[in-house]
Amino acid sequence: MSSEKTIQRIAVITSGGDAPGMNACIRAVVLTAQHYGIEVLAFRHGYEGLLNNDWQRLDETNVLHILQYSGTIIKSARSERFKQAEAAQEAARNLDAHQIDALVVIGGDGSFRGADHLSHHWDGQVIGVPGTIDNDLFGSDDTIGYSTAVETAMDALDKIRDTAEAMDRVFIVEVMGRHAGFIGLSSAMASGAERMILPELQREKPLTVASIVKHIEAVQRVRGDSSYVMVLSEHQWPGGAVRLAEQLEDRLHLPCRPCLLGHTQRGGRPTAHDRILATRLGVHAVQLIRQGVSGVMAGTSGQGLAETPLAETWQKRKGLSQEWVDIQQSLFNPVKKSKNGS
Amino acid sequence: MSSEKTIQRIAVITSGGDAPGMNACIRAVVLTAQHYGIEVLAFRHGYEGLLNNDWQRLDETNVLHILQYSGTIIKSARSERFKQAEAAQEAARNLDAHQIDALVVIGGDGSFRGADHLSHHWDGQVIGVPGTIDNDLFGSDDTIGYSTAVETAMDALDKIRDTAEAMDRVFIVEVMGRHAGFIGLSSAMASGAERMILPELQREKPLTVASIVKHIEAVQRVRGDSSYVMVLSEHQWPGGAVRLAEQLEDRLHLPCRPCLLGHTQRGGRPTAHDRILATRLGVHAVQLIRQGVSGVMAGTSGQGLAETPLAETWQKRKGLSQEWVDIQQSLFNPVKKSKNGS
Amino acid sequence: MSSEKTIQRIAVITSGGDAPGMNACIRAVVLTAQHYGIEVLAFRHGYEGLLNNDWQRLDETNVLHILQYSGTIIKSARSERFKQAEAAQEAARNLDAHQIDALVVIGGDGSFRGADHLSHHWDGQVIGVPGTIDNDLFGSDDTIGYSTAVETAMDALDKIRDTAEAMDRVFIVEVMGRHAGFIGLSSAMASGAERMILPELQREKPLTVASIVKHIEAVQRVRGDSSYVMVLSEHQWPGGAVRLAEQLEDRLHLPCRPCLLGHTQRGGRPTAHDRILATRLGVHAVQLIRQGVSGVMAGTSGQGLAETPLAETWQKRKGLSQEWVDIQQSLFNPVKKSKNGS
Amino acid sequence: MSSEKTIQRIAVITSGGDAPGMNACIRAVVLTAQHYGIEVLAFRHGYEGLLNNDWQRLDETNVLHILQYSGTIIKSARSERFKQAEAAQEAARNLDAHQIDALVVIGGDGSFRGADHLSHHWDGQVIGVPGTIDNDLFGSDDTIGYSTAVETAMDALDKIRDTAEAMDRVFIVEVMGRHAGFIGLSSAMASGAERMILPELQREKPLTVASIVKHIEAVQRVRGDSSYVMVLSEHQWPGGAVRLAEQLEDRLHLPCRPCLLGHTQRGGRPTAHDRILATRLGVHAVQLIRQGVSGVMAGTSGQGLAETPLAETWQKRKGLSQEWVDIQQSLFNPVKKSKNGS
Repeated sequence: MSSEKTIQRIAVITSGGDAPGMNACIRAVVLTAQHYGIEVLAFRHGYEGLLNNDWQRLDETNVLHILQYSGTIIKSARSERFKQAEAAQEAARNLDAHQIDALVVIGGDGSFRGADHLSHHWDGQVIGVPGTIDNDLFGSDDTIGYSTAVETAMDALDKIRDTAEAMDRVFIVEVMGRHAGFIGLSSAMASGAERMILPELQREKPLTVASIVKHIEAVQRVRGDSSYVMVLSEHQWPGGAVRLAEQLEDRLHLPCRPCLLGHTQRGGRPTAHDRILATRLGVHAVQLIRQGVSGVMAGTSGQGLAETPLAETWQKRKGLSQEWVDIQQSLFNPVKKSKNGS
Repeated sequence: MSSEKTIQRIAVITSGGDAPGMNACIRAVVLTAQHYGIEVLAFRHGYEGLLNNDWQRLDETNVLHILQYSGTIIKSARSERFKQAEAAQEAARNLDAHQIDALVVIGGDGSFRGADHLSHHWDGQVIGVPGTIDNDLFGSDDTIGYSTAVETAMDALDKIRDTAEAMDRVFIVEVMGRHAGFIGLSSAMASGAERMILPELQREKPLTVASIVKHIEAVQRVRGDSSYVMVLSEHQWPGGAVRLAEQLEDRLHLPCRPCLLGHTQRGGRPTAHDRILATRLGVHAVQLIRQGVSGVMAGTSGQGLAETPLAETWQKRKGLSQEWVDIQQSLFNPVKKSKNGS
Repeated sequence: MSSEKTIQRIAVITSGGDAPGMNACIRAVVLTAQHYGIEVLAFRHGYEGLLNNDWQRLDETNVLHILQYSGTIIKSARSERFKQAEAAQEAARNLDAHQIDALVVIGGDGSFRGADHLSHHWDGQVIGVPGTIDNDLFGSDDTIGYSTAVETAMDALDKIRDTAEAMDRVFIVEVMGRHAGFIGLSSAMASGAERMILPELQREKPLTVASIVKHIEAVQRVRGDSSYVMVLSEHQWPGGAVRLAEQLEDRLHLPCRPCLLGHTQRGGRPTAHDRILATRLGVHAVQLIRQGVSGVMAGTSGQGLAETPLAETWQKRKGLSQEWVDIQQSLFNPVKKSKNGS
Repeated sequence: MSSEKTIQRIAVITSGGDAPGMNACIRAVVLTAQHYGIEVLAFRHGYEGLLNNDWQRLDETNVLHILQYSGTIIKSARSERFKQAEAAQEAARNLDAHQIDALVVIGGDGSFRGADHLSHHWDGQVIGVPGTIDNDLFGSDDTIGYSTAVETAMDALDKIRDTAEAMDRVFIVEVMGRHAGFIGLSSAMASGAERMILPELQREKPLTVASIVKHIEAVQRVRGDSSYVMVLSEHQWPGGAVRLAEQLEDRLHLPCRPCLLGHTQRGGRPTAHDRILATRLGVHAVQLIRQGVSGVMAGTSGQGLAETPLAETWQKRKGLSQEWVDIQQSLFNPVKKSKNGS
């Protein structure tokens, strides 16, 4: 790390899909900056705000008691036009006009590509903070919002179990995570789901209607009439949970119902885990700026903090834990167990 | 009311779609019966249990600390075959073999039709208790499970609002209630939804894609960029929320996302309202039995209790409150207001 | 009701202990007023704001998406000095200076006494809206905030039951309601508490340490080792739950632990019930003002709306439901039941 | 690790204060054992069950759908008499009579001392699993129940903030953790509390009434009238939160209210984090047994699993994160910040 540098003014944006805890992170950036006498500007709606020069000052007054709310007080957006070179140059001009020393980008891989793109056209420091419910960024054990999204999915799965048990029925709950099965795996594990259809597993050995039907029937043979709850990551089945439910009904001659959690997974009160993570990373981002660091994502590793070059966050792959997958798929699979028993 | 009769043994079933609070009602039936020295039998899986003679004894031990859980410890089911005359006769034989004096049926209109059907073939007393999240039974201000279902829908709508506000987006949340808009109206009102598509309103003046698009654009004109959240009752749109979202995206050229709450609305911890309602109605059902009453549903009216002949519960229509609809559609409609202002 | 009057500007305050749903009520007042082209001013911190002329304009922008939050965006306070005649005159001068036609006071009995007091010194219309978690106002089935407070207390009691069952222990949970046992009764009923100590019952036949010990021992005789959870209304025991726990430990030689929910009962996301109630009453208050009505509280009765002269709201007594008390104390009391059984 | 050993029957107990997630851990032990054809016995009420030979068989049927509930289906207890040598010998005889190869003890430091004590009198393998909300065991990043307890405390603190903000008031919330401030620190950080009184900080530099009053007044000077919320670990103030509230009222001449969360922190639905942690550790405990390991606690370290000799878990000290403490106490302290600004 380089020695401390005099920073006078920094900017912050939230970009891409919003994630619970982004507000806690904004608060941490502002409170830490204020502690060191650094001014904070926010650009609203992510990179769109940088392009439109849509900004506001942030001090303690703006961020007092926002850490308990999801969403982002400075709004977020996806920006297609920022991908152009001229756009990054325009953003750089706006940042310079405000005499910004460093920019904190809270978002996911698309937002970090944007940050990297900007850094080729702007001299200021750029620090990324992982804010995405998908948890799919290499370089941080967790991302801001992931814990809350899992809790929301688990809560829905618990509710589904209540009625599934009352009626001995089959349910499919579609969760977020089109490229990564973290939410799917964690919520399946936390709720004791009988089956999970995740991108990583589908890529390896795709499930078919026939194989799912076979498993459901086997579970019901082992357990007697009982509930069966499946977690399906979005975009892993043509027509999604709605279509899969129809296909299973046709084959099982039993009611089988879908549930699409959709964007509920982006809202709700952030968990303590997400608030604390967001707070730590917001603080760390400002500390890194004060140390003259640029071009990295502030993340966590174990109990500590970690920095990863921005490009690595999307170029390197963060895989699912094999330990976790094995527990769900092998150890806890009632059908395989019954085979062992025979 | 007739004078008190000596009752020695009663039976209870939960039938049709399960509803949060059914367990609290079972508990109340058992504790009240036990207080008066009456034995309680449960038949499992609703009318199916009556036909299969699938029964169990219930005493305080079985119902201690179950009132906080959704589902039903004696399972529920829908029974097509019970509609036959021979089935009702078979059930009557089973009830008589157990020397049952009276049967408590916790369920919705289909279950009450079953109870009415049974009463033509069996001499014992039959009391219905309104247990359905749909709240569509004439003769009771509320039904068991409705309050919890509204809370679940509202909770999802709140979460959607968080992300909708962060991104200025349009969302459609599909809720239960194919024949009655109670859940839709209450959850829309409780969450401040901009639009609701309910069976009662669709029958009167159906919304079209064009009219919805016009309203969204008008709201955005009045408010500036902003979120727009719609509540859609199930079966009120061809293809449901998923299809409507696609149609709106095509027209608005803005992301518009669906969310299907599905059976999450049947689960979760019952609200205090549902637990107390279920408790009161379970107690009341046993008191009515002791008074020799039969063929009615035990319900509430205002602060008090009320009884309604079973057939009236589905023949008479319980409408939405016009006061409530007017508030959501007229008073709180930002577009109409802006017209007034011009 | 008198015929409609032209109202141009109204004011609103929240006064006394805050209650979940107050924000939803403020929103409803503002949206309804805006619908009719009426301006709304808020005075901040209740009557203190009237005295200090601490005011702000409220329009849709201020109240958009506040209905999901507890607290009050216009702050509340208790005001001792407002009880003086000169204070009411000062308030009247401030109201007149702003050309206020009518004042909506959202609060409890103390706030309504203030409203009544003001009405002797000011010519404008005054409408009360019942906003208090205690539910102790005559003239409305429910008050805003009561439902949420009960849910919070029940949630704590459920959590206590989890650990009480794991360890077979005795717990005392102290809830709000020093003059009225509504929260205590409802939360005890909703959670299946073994005992409740409420003001109304203590006035009638006070429990002693000896009688409580006797009941605990009797319950444990009937049920075998088991949990025992007590609900205690605040100010009903010298030294509160902390002291009672010590006294019971001394006598039972078993761990007995207290829990003081305190002001958690005033916070949290308002229930759907409170949000809808608050919305309806806010709308109704403005409708009453437009009809020229003054000096009443806007409340509910059964499914409908009701008005009650302000003085009656505190002079007449709203009692606990005897039906509810009997269920908890007689029907569901395991000890009495065991006597019956002998 | 030693090579795999043939294990035929294991036993499991939950001991000491119960913690949310214990059921998920029991389930994991049973499902994993079943996968490998190992029988599982539970002894009820912790070591008391070992002494009283109070046991039951556990198979999948017993543990299906218990992971969503707090408490422990096999009950827990603290056992004073187990500390005697004769007691451990008696327990060993009971274990041998059942031909138990290994014992899994889910509990805290007291329970692990018991396990260590037992291992001097019994030849079977003993594995500890950290189940305590206090998170005070050396050798595992987290303990089962800690995450849920923090969430419960944070939830209460959020509710308190709602009303504190509405009324500009001072509140003290007493949380668990008499020897370790983990719950206090995490919940303070997650809720943005203005002050925390933790065992570790009190040992270093104890706060006095005067210093607290000074800080409250300074915060109110910096922020204007505002809320002030304090987190107090139990047993860190004579008379607890109730007494401290009285002392502050005397000095501040402002209402200051206490709240004792008590054992609510041991109940409620376990978080996804606790369920997954409990599941992983339950699986790991059985895997360790199959590897012939004994005398260790199964814990986590970073993303992986870790084992620690039982005695180290209480002999070595797990400290609070200095990074976290600094954020709360230095960076985010509005008073110190104002000094910097002067």
